[in-house]
Parts: sequence; C-alpha cells; structure tokens
Amino acid sequence: MKSTSYDLVVIGGGPAGVEAIREAGLLGLRSAIILNAPAGGRAAKGSLVPSKVWLAAAEEMDHLHHPLATRALSDPPRPDLGKIKQRITAQSEATVQWSRAEIDKAGARLITGTGKLLGPNQVKVEAEEGDPEILTTRFVLIATGSGPSFSPGLKPDMKRIIAPRLASGLTEIPESLIMAGGGVTGTEYAYAFAALGTRVTILQSNGQLLPRMDTDISQAFARYLESTLPITIHTGDGVASMALEENEVRATTRSGKIYRAQYGFIATGRQPDPSWQDPAGPALAADEQGFIQVDGHAMTSVEGIYAAGDVTGAPMLANRALMQARIAVRHMVDGSSSPWNQHPVIEGVYTHPPVAQIGDMSPDPAARWIIKSYDELLKARLKDVGYGKLKIKVDTATGMILGAAAFGLQAPDLLAPIQTAMLNGIHYDRLRGQVLAYPGFAELVSL
Amino acid sequence: MKSTSYDLVVIGGGPAGVEAIREAGLLGLRSAIILNAPAGGRAAKGSLVPSKVWLAAAEEMDHLHHPLATRALSDPPRPDLGKIKQRITAQSEATVQWSRAEIDKAGARLITGTGKLLGPNQVKVEAEEGDPEILTTRFVLIATGSGPSFSPGLKPDMKRIIAPRLASGLTEIPESLIMAGGGVTGTEYAYAFAALGTRVTILQSNGQLLPRMDTDISQAFARYLESTLPITIHTGDGVASMALEENEVRATTRSGKIYRAQYGFIATGRQPDPSWQDPAGPALAADEQGFIQVDGHAMTSVEGIYAAGDVTGAPMLANRALMQARIAVRHMVDGSSSPWNQHPVIEGVYTHPPVAQIGDMSPDPAARWIIKSYDELLKARLKDVGYGKLKIKVDTATGMILGAAAFGLQAPDLLAPIQTAMLNGIHYDRLRGQVLAYPGFAELVSL
Repeated sequence: MKSTSYDLVVIGGGPAGVEAIREAGLLGLRSAIILNAPAGGRAAKGSLVPSKVWLAAAEEMDHLHHPLATRALSDPPRPDLGKIKQRITAQSEATVQWSRAEIDKAGARLITGTGKLLGPNQVKVEAEEGDPEILTTRFVLIATGSGPSFSPGLKPDMKRIIAPRLASGLTEIPESLIMAGGGVTGTEYAYAFAALGTRVTILQSNGQLLPRMDTDISQAFARYLESTLPITIHTGDGVASMALEENEVRATTRSGKIYRAQYGFIATGRQPDPSWQDPAGPALAADEQGFIQVDGHAMTSVEGIYAAGDVTGAPMLANRALMQARIAVRHMVDGSSSPWNQHPVIEGVYTHPPVAQIGDMSPDPAARWIIKSYDELLKARLKDVGYGKLKIKVDTATGMILGAAAFGLQAPDLLAPIQTAMLNGIHYDRLRGQVLAYPGFAELVSL
Repeated sequence: MKSTSYDLVVIGGGPAGVEAIREAGLLGLRSAIILNAPAGGRAAKGSLVPSKVWLAAAEEMDHLHHPLATRALSDPPRPDLGKIKQRITAQSEATVQWSRAEIDKAGARLITGTGKLLGPNQVKVEAEEGDPEILTTRFVLIATGSGPSFSPGLKPDMKRIIAPRLASGLTEIPESLIMAGGGVTGTEYAYAFAALGTRVTILQSNGQLLPRMDTDISQAFARYLESTLPITIHTGDGVASMALEENEVRATTRSGKIYRAQYGFIATGRQPDPSWQDPAGPALAADEQGFIQVDGHAMTSVEGIYAAGDVTGAPMLANRALMQARIAVRHMVDGSSSPWNQHPVIEGVYTHPPVAQIGDMSPDPAARWIIKSYDELLKARLKDVGYGKLKIKVDTATGMILGAAAFGLQAPDLLAPIQTAMLNGIHYDRLRGQVLAYPGFAELVSL
C-alpha cells in the first residue's frame, strides 16, 4: 500500500471539486483530486451542461415561433434531435477537457478511483484494479455531489419513463410528456420539451411551481408558460407512481388522479452521493436525507474536513458550489474568508425568459415592496416583450435590500447590481439613483 | 402680453426636458415646459427611438442569418421595410404619448411654441399665432438638444443622400450605402443596414471606429463587423463631399479618394439647437461649437439658469441627459444633489452584439488591466458566441475600478455591477469575489 502526503485531498470532480483545486493552485497548496467519473462530474455529463444545451435549443425554437413584425418565415422551423445530441456531446466533452486542464494547471494530482474518508487526515482510494492507496493530508474536501432520488413506484424504465441524464438517449422528440416535479429541474425540462413541440403536463406536489421562488413571480411565470406554450400545470398533487401501459405512460397522483402521455419524466428530487463514506471513517453530522451539514466556512462537524456543493444540500446550484469551495480552501489556509452563508446567491431557472431570485422574499407586510414591470422599458417594447416583472424587498427600518426576484429577459444577470448592493451595504435608494445603460434591461433596477 | 409665474420653466421637450418636469413634479415645483415639436422631442421622432427600431429589426435578421445548430430554415428570411416603418411610427407615437402623460402627471403646463431665454427669471414664448407670452420663473432649464450638423458639400439631398431622421422615408432597403462617419450613430446605422442586406462602406475621419471607445475593444468590434457582415471600414480619411451622379452617390474623401454606392448616409456630427437664444437675453458660456458649458450641477455660467442633455455637448446620451436633468432640479430645490460629472455613465452602442464603456479607459501602463474573453463562459458557448471581450482598468495604488469597456452580448447591462462598484467605492477584488448567476454573462465580471 502506497502512501503520499498532501495539503488538500478533494473527493469528487464536479464543479465544487474542480473549483477547490483551482483555488488551492492559486494559493500554492499541494493537492490531489479523486474522481470515479470523468472530470467535471455529473454536471458535465448528466445534469447541468446537458440541461443547458436542451434549454439553448428550446430557446432558439421558441424565438423562431414568436416572430417579431419583421420576420417572415415560409415554413415553421422544426427541431433537429440529432443536432441537439451532438451539441450535448460536444459541450459535455468541452467541460470535461476544461476541468482536466484546470486540474493540470493547478499542479494537482488527478487520481482515478473512489475516495473514501478515513479521518481528518486520511483518505483511501479504491481503484478498479490494484490495492487501495492511502493519502495523508492536512485537509479533506468532500464534493461528491448529488444524484436523482427515485422511489420504488416512481423510477425510470430507460424506455418511456426517463429522467434528466436519460434525456439525451431519446430517439424522438416526445409528442406528449408528464413531468413529475415542478422544481427547477422539472420546470426547465418542461419548458425545453414544450418549446420543441411536446405537449407537457407538469404535476407538482407543492402548491406552486418553483416552490423556492417568490409566489407572485412564480405565478406570473406559470401564467406565461400556460398561455404561450403547450404546457399545463397542476399543483398541490404530486405523482405517486408511473408505469408504462399499452404503449402509454400512466401517472397516478397521491390523490388518485390518473394522467396519460407518451412519455414520463421524473424530476422529483436529488439525494447526496454517499460514496465518500467508509465504515472505518468518522460519522459527519448530516440532515435526515443524508446531506452533510457545514458551517459558514463549509467545515463539517469534524475539524479539518470540509464539504461543498450539492452534497451539502439545497439550494443545489453550481454558483453556490463554487463559492463554498473557494471559501473552504481560503479558510484552510488562513481562516480569513467571510462565511458563504452571508453571501446572498442568485438562484436562476434557465427557461426563456428565465426566472431568478436572491435573498429572502418571504411575505412581510412591514417590508417595503417595489414592483417594476418590463413594459415600462423601451428595450422591452423594442423586443416586443409583453411580460416580465421585478420585485424588490427593502427593510423599512434600514433601507437595505433584503431580497429580489424577477421573471423576464436577463433576469439572473439583472440581479447582479442588486447583489453588489446587498453584499456591500448599499441602500436601495442609492442603487435606484444609479443611471444605467439606456435602453437596457438593467434599467428596471433604477426606474 | 400675458405674464405667469413658475418655479421652473423648461425649454425643450426631449428626454432631458421631460425628466426635469418629472423630477419637478416629485419635488412639488410649479413648472412649465415649452415645446416647438411633439413631446419627446427629436429623440422620439427623429433620432433615438427610430434608430433603436432599425437596430431591433436588424438584430432579428442577423439572428436568423447566424443559425445555431438546431435551426433549419428553408428560405433565407427577408426584411419587410413596411413593417419596420410601421414599428417606427408606433414606437415614436408611444414615446410621444408617454412624454405627454408624464408632463400631465407632474401637473406641469405644456406650452406649444419656441422658448426664448430673456434672463435668469424670464422666458418668452413665441407661438406661431398671437403675441409672445412672458413667463416669470425662479429657475430655467435649457434642454433644446442637438440636431445633425452638415457642411455645404456634405448634406442630404432627401433622395439618395440621407441622414438619421430621413431613414424612415426610404422606399427600399439600399443595395449599397456609403456611411460618412464612424461614431455611434454612423456605426449603429451601418450595422442596421448591413444586417438587413445592404453592402456598407464606412468612411471615418478618426483613426478608429467609435473614437470614444477603448482602442482594443473598438478594434475587436470592427473585425467582427467586417468578418460577419457586408461592411468595409476605412479609417483616418473622412468624407469631404457627397453628390448624386448618374444614379450613383459619389463620395470624395479629404485625401481625394472616390467611393461610389447606391445611397449615401451622413452621420458626421451633431450641433446644439440654439433656438433658446434671444438677442435680448444673456450670453451663456459655451464651447466653440456652441455647446453650453455647465458645472457639476448642470448650472450654466449664469446663476439660476441650468442646461441638460445634448445641448451641453458630448457624450450625447439619453441616460446622461436624464441624470443631468434630475441633478439640476434637485440642486434648484436644496443644493443637495451630488455632481453629475462624478457619476460615471455607461455609453452604449446598440449594435448586435453591442459595445459599451464606462469611466476612463485611456492608456496607462501603470494601471492594472484585466481582460476577459466571452469564450470562457458556458453561457457564450451555449449560444455559439465566438466573440466578445471585457476590459477593466484598475488603479494599482487604490484597487479601485477606473473604467471598463466591453464588446459582446449584453455589454451595456454587463457594466451595471461595475458602475455600482465605481459609484460606491467598492474595490475590484471585492467585486471579483461576488458569485454571480451561473450560467450568465455577468459572470465575466467575477471570472
């Protein structure tokens, strides 16, 4: 059994793991990263990148079907599934290559195998062949991510009942599809298929689509989806089971309602990847679903062991994962990083138009609520945009921004100056005095 | 001769004038606005709004001609000039209506006629019929704007040699066109016609296209235009004269070179509208072209007389005009507004992709220069965007951002968080630590 010594060993090669290695490289740490899948992780191959390619293709089709006055198309354009799949492969591969190059650039050792946590200073690598290797290290970062969670009655059959990572195996664009789940993933795929021509029924257990989002913004967005695309949304009654029956997928809801479609799609939730666990290793504090609990510096319940990304639970966002990873590594070096949970993160839903939120948007009659409509913008009128809304929540006592949510073109990037204000203690009224580009969308912030 | 008394009399009804009236309404001033054209000014009918409609139409055509992999159009789409003109009329009319409504909402008196400045507290209104009216007022704001400036050998013939406000009189999309001038207006129209199918030759006296912009950004943008659209750019040799000869427009440059095309377009500069001047009124300090000189609060050389917008010179931007107008009115009321010239403004060029700049980008080897390429972004790769660049200039001693320039999708709005940082003393390194939406374009700021 070989033994080697590092400053940092990272278990898992998705966005959080690669970012930790990049930061470690910048700070001069001697590091290693253990991967049991191509660099870039599930994000590159199965979840984030493929979904964004589907969405980009859908946005193009959507754009062509919502003509501005100047457009004159003789035939309605049709999606090309082969090209979409080629683009998924190309983008996934580009992300894998980029991740590998970044690991190299950081001077880190890339180890293929499954990393197992033995203790704060010891990680075991189980490879397919040969003896396990023991790595000695000052710090460990767990970044194994998450995978889809299926219940016995509700799991893919690999043929007509699919899930995010199986979408790129489709041999046709479905005529009709039942989406089990109306969270971010369910909503993004529902939008993508509908824009490509599929009739989509979303069945959502929660009382609203996108349950993490502000209710007004969620409702405005849901109305937009139902009125412009072949989408029907049912909330408050989730799917209990799905089965293929006589060439149709039958979905049964918890209340016993039956829905049928050509395809079923399961986007009901994700669970942490526990592959880092070893019977000989320490138990880390976790929630009831197994997501590792971390503090503001991404440290787990055991000193010296950190965790970042989806394995630490919701919101499962690549940008939050990158931030946690950076803060964790800086904390290892000099303890100087400010806590990640004091950094408001932009949560984006990458439909077209997109939806985005930052901070706390929970109802509060005492707060000052600012609501702006896109139709006040010259830019929106020029683009024939008849929808879109920005909502800002301001603390009445202090004048500081508590949160913001938007549905409309550029929504996630629209929140960038709001985030700058929230992070730096800039009052809403001062931000509002900023004279932005004209005509633009960012103007909404200062109208 | 009637006489009436006000807190504020505004001469001119373009963006600056209307904004001053809005601000005066908010602050409870008794105000009047004198217009010799429909509310909204030249911006609504002749310059800003029509140009942005041309650009929106061009962007649509451009989009359809740069297919993503998923697109399958059987016929190349063709622009519809009639629809473009309809949209110009509709958008211009909407801007006029909005401006009138805002004047009403502010409780201001709208006076049709030409306002003439008699002194700090007196303005004369010359109407087409009847006697002039004298208005007594505490403050005056001059906002008469600018019009195109033509030299004797270089002016429109209303047929084949046109200018911005004449473009909506076209009866065909030109096959070929010579653009005299490569500033913002010349570049925007050159892009618009080229995207609609016209072969365009830009003849620019300055050594670079968009002379106010950072040279690297300008050059990257010029290369993009020449490589993707039927545009040829010649710099360093401006047009001296244009004439229609045997059904062709012949342009002669200062160095004597000859260029021919079906149409000529003059976008060589703008001059202040001096209609506010009266022989009996005071002389205001002005530069050699006649642009009124103002201080940081938009006050002219005569106390109590303010000026805002294009009539105060470059940069002639609607967003700068609005800001000057607001600051002027607040200064009249309580002297509290901070000087507008300490507020960095985003200058946008609304081609597709657009170009934008803020602050000071003059060469300085001692400064820290950060250069980011759009191809580092997942968002750009998803949209098949193979161009785009962001450049940030940071003060080496203080770490503060001095300026930024960008060419690429969303460029003007991309500068919003940079502007927030510049306005609020946030260091570049702190802005860079901000975790933006992913995947998005704003991310470039924090890469």
